[in-house]
Amino acid sequence: MSFAKLDAHCRSLIALEHALSILGVDEATAMAPGGGEQRAEAMAGLSGMYHRQATAPQVRDWIEAAKTETLDQAQQTAVAELERSYVNLTCLPADFVEHKMRTGMRSEQLWRTARPKGDWVGFRPALEGVVELVREEAAMRAELLGLAPYDALMEQFDPGNRTETITPVFAELKAFLVDFVPKALKIQDEKRAKRPLKPLSGIYPVEKQKALGIAMMKAVGFDMNHGSLSVSDHPFCGGVPTDVRLTTRYRTDEFLPALMGILHETGHGLYEQNLPKDWAHWPSGKARGMSIHESQSLFVEKQIGRNPAFWTFALPHVASHLGEDWAMDDLLPHVHQVKRGLIRVDADEVTYPLHVILRYELEQDLLAGRLEVKDLPEAWDAKMGDYLGISSLDAPQNGPMQDVHWPSGAFGYFPSYTLGAMMAAQQWATISRSHPDINEEIAAGDFTTVNTWRRDNIWLKASMGSTPEILRQATGEDLNPAYFIAHLKTRYGA
Amino acid sequence: MSFAKLDAHCRSLIALEHALSILGVDEATAMAPGGGEQRAEAMAGLSGMYHRQATAPQVRDWIEAAKTETLDQAQQTAVAELERSYVNLTCLPADFVEHKMRTGMRSEQLWRTARPKGDWVGFRPALEGVVELVREEAAMRAELLGLAPYDALMEQFDPGNRTETITPVFAELKAFLVDFVPKALKIQDEKRAKRPLKPLSGIYPVEKQKALGIAMMKAVGFDMNHGSLSVSDHPFCGGVPTDVRLTTRYRTDEFLPALMGILHETGHGLYEQNLPKDWAHWPSGKARGMSIHESQSLFVEKQIGRNPAFWTFALPHVASHLGEDWAMDDLLPHVHQVKRGLIRVDADEVTYPLHVILRYELEQDLLAGRLEVKDLPEAWDAKMGDYLGISSLDAPQNGPMQDVHWPSGAFGYFPSYTLGAMMAAQQWATISRSHPDINEEIAAGDFTTVNTWRRDNIWLKASMGSTPEILRQATGEDLNPAYFIAHLKTRYGA
Repeated sequence: MSFAKLDAHCRSLIALEHALSILGVDEATAMAPGGGEQRAEAMAGLSGMYHRQATAPQVRDWIEAAKTETLDQAQQTAVAELERSYVNLTCLPADFVEHKMRTGMRSEQLWRTARPKGDWVGFRPALEGVVELVREEAAMRAELLGLAPYDALMEQFDPGNRTETITPVFAELKAFLVDFVPKALKIQDEKRAKRPLKPLSGIYPVEKQKALGIAMMKAVGFDMNHGSLSVSDHPFCGGVPTDVRLTTRYRTDEFLPALMGILHETGHGLYEQNLPKDWAHWPSGKARGMSIHESQSLFVEKQIGRNPAFWTFALPHVASHLGEDWAMDDLLPHVHQVKRGLIRVDADEVTYPLHVILRYELEQDLLAGRLEVKDLPEAWDAKMGDYLGISSLDAPQNGPMQDVHWPSGAFGYFPSYTLGAMMAAQQWATISRSHPDINEEIAAGDFTTVNTWRRDNIWLKASMGSTPEILRQATGEDLNPAYFIAHLKTRYGA
Repeated sequence: MSFAKLDAHCRSLIALEHALSILGVDEATAMAPGGGEQRAEAMAGLSGMYHRQATAPQVRDWIEAAKTETLDQAQQTAVAELERSYVNLTCLPADFVEHKMRTGMRSEQLWRTARPKGDWVGFRPALEGVVELVREEAAMRAELLGLAPYDALMEQFDPGNRTETITPVFAELKAFLVDFVPKALKIQDEKRAKRPLKPLSGIYPVEKQKALGIAMMKAVGFDMNHGSLSVSDHPFCGGVPTDVRLTTRYRTDEFLPALMGILHETGHGLYEQNLPKDWAHWPSGKARGMSIHESQSLFVEKQIGRNPAFWTFALPHVASHLGEDWAMDDLLPHVHQVKRGLIRVDADEVTYPLHVILRYELEQDLLAGRLEVKDLPEAWDAKMGDYLGISSLDAPQNGPMQDVHWPSGAFGYFPSYTLGAMMAAQQWATISRSHPDINEEIAAGDFTTVNTWRRDNIWLKASMGSTPEILRQATGEDLNPAYFIAHLKTRYGA
């Protein structure tokens, strides 16, 4: 039976995925500095094996044959999702894939040295080469999938996401935010005039911060029997669903950044830990994509972790672990700080979407040839001025050189961040409707309702529907910016 | 060219070996408890891939073809060693290998629960099953390799080791030790009557012990750019040559066990770190086998680390890290403690060989059918009485149930430990002959001579000769028990 062959095929691939994933975690958390070269060799070797096995011609035959077999609904979905993954892996000529990978890696390496110096002129030719290949790639994917080129790129990260849906949603959000950011800043200024911002600085030993972080991870539902928390230069959620590896980084003079980072990664981790076990080795049993993943991390970080109700629960834990007995009115202004800034990854939840929308617009222009790389700094600056009223023209490292995405060839990825934020707000609104006491539960440290809802509606759905389908089934409607806008108004507008 | 095909074949295998090795380290040091089942699945999957690739029929053709190509000496050696490895992997029928692996795993699992209870009767049938299969395996290997059955088993762990050589050497060592152990104990008693043993107990925080351990690792030549020290339940040396992972375990009330454990693993690590880089992916570039590996760990632990000259160098480091200013005459009696005991892994360097020789004799009797498993406890006890004058008849967990080797099906492995100890002494004697000031160098913390000699004569030889060949080339003679005996006499006989 071909379905059984595909099942064995998926099991074999998952062993290689497991190895690649753990090797990646190990590299960031435990590898000796001199081990990098051989690690890269080993991972390239395993990736090659993975690609050869995943794209073997007989897999296509098994898929075709399995479609004619008597399968239940979950099996049919599994085969369909495997086919999507197979097509995605085989739709580009092998020599193009290799050429693009090498170009992207060289460009990324160049970016790593050029960025700190703000050397746009030195880096530009590399980015031009990448953009040229991305245009080719998008055209090929578009042709094969019958999609518009930019949609074909987004399809890799979030199946089902289309500019047709996203552009009007982003337009509405942008119009709101350009107006709302100055208002929110004014309100913040007025509040601070009444009650000055009290610094949260102190001396917070790493071990105590870690204990606090783990207490919060456990509280919001993370299973420490199937995961752990360690340290890396850049926080991430990695590993495998049965052993989810979260990392953070600590400063000993403040605790909030590490703690909020832990909550964010915990959101990713809860999703991974609660994917359906029976389908763990099939693509249909894996996390859906970037925007739903981000909706889960932002649900925990923003909807829960920056919710005043959460801090009713969390403040006594901060006090017992760090010995700091903050007043709610001194802590919340830090948790809800709004600040215009040039750097996306440092942005708060109010200004962040404008960074993403700027990139969403510019990368479509680049792809369509309406914009060339040489004109990017000016185009970037013009939008940054329009949206946030600030300029990076004299420091490209804080402008179009700030992110790794474009230098590495990842176009169509940026929208996921803000789509995730909006989906998280929409999910929260859905839960609140049927559970009006949700804030009281959270203030009491009871996360059962939010977790049960997400388990049933998001986590166990894995990749058994497209991104928009999962959102629609979970919340009863398509992506609707009203929830995120209402969320920001409530939290920052009064 | 077939040699080039074999080179690519070896590179592909080394990627899988790298993954398996790091996954193993990760499992012991970082894995979440609940991650074990999926980890086992993943490692079984990768091992299966490794076995299929390593034993692919075309590899035999490439080897045969490569032998007819114009190759330099190192290439010829590489092909010959690859053939040895290929034959070793393919010489048993696949269903026998699988049957033996399953039997061994089940027996080992049973052993883990039966041992703490001393449940010999419950465990015995499992061991009988293992012994039966080992007899079959030895017969098959013997037939194929043209060796005696026990030699054919040893050949897996130490190519070239033969009972013909080892038995008389062990006989001489045994005769010496049965006489020497009581003498050494008497001398120890007399010394302690004059200067009572002063306990080294104190409170030694783990972080301070770790810093001391790393200082000693670096001093004896370990490259921290290509390795690290962490914690696991059972100390080991794992990882890959470019990233050697040592582990130890700490007690906070004593420092010597962890430190001596670190020195032991550092000896393994130095060997791995200094194997020839150019041949790292070929079997000929890997560590030779168990007894030479053990000779390197014991060289650092016993020849260096229990040498009084070493403590002239090390004591000030102990003082600066732990704040304990021990007198040499109080420390050395701990480093050189001799004690009769039932447990091999707890034995000192004087009594240890008797534990090994006992096993060496019994496993040959079991293999040849001169001894049956049901009679093992009595046979064990008789020898334990003869060699060390102690009995474990009432507690089989301290007798034939103490080691994992037999329950898991590893026969022919035990001699490696004592062969390693003897080879280390022979290597040390060779160095001392040409460098009479070696102890002064070590007392000054200068390990250049011992490391240069071992790099040239052991480490860089990798698997480019058999175990006896490497020893002969390095020391100018075959295995000679006189060096180890002289070493024990000097250290414990006066």
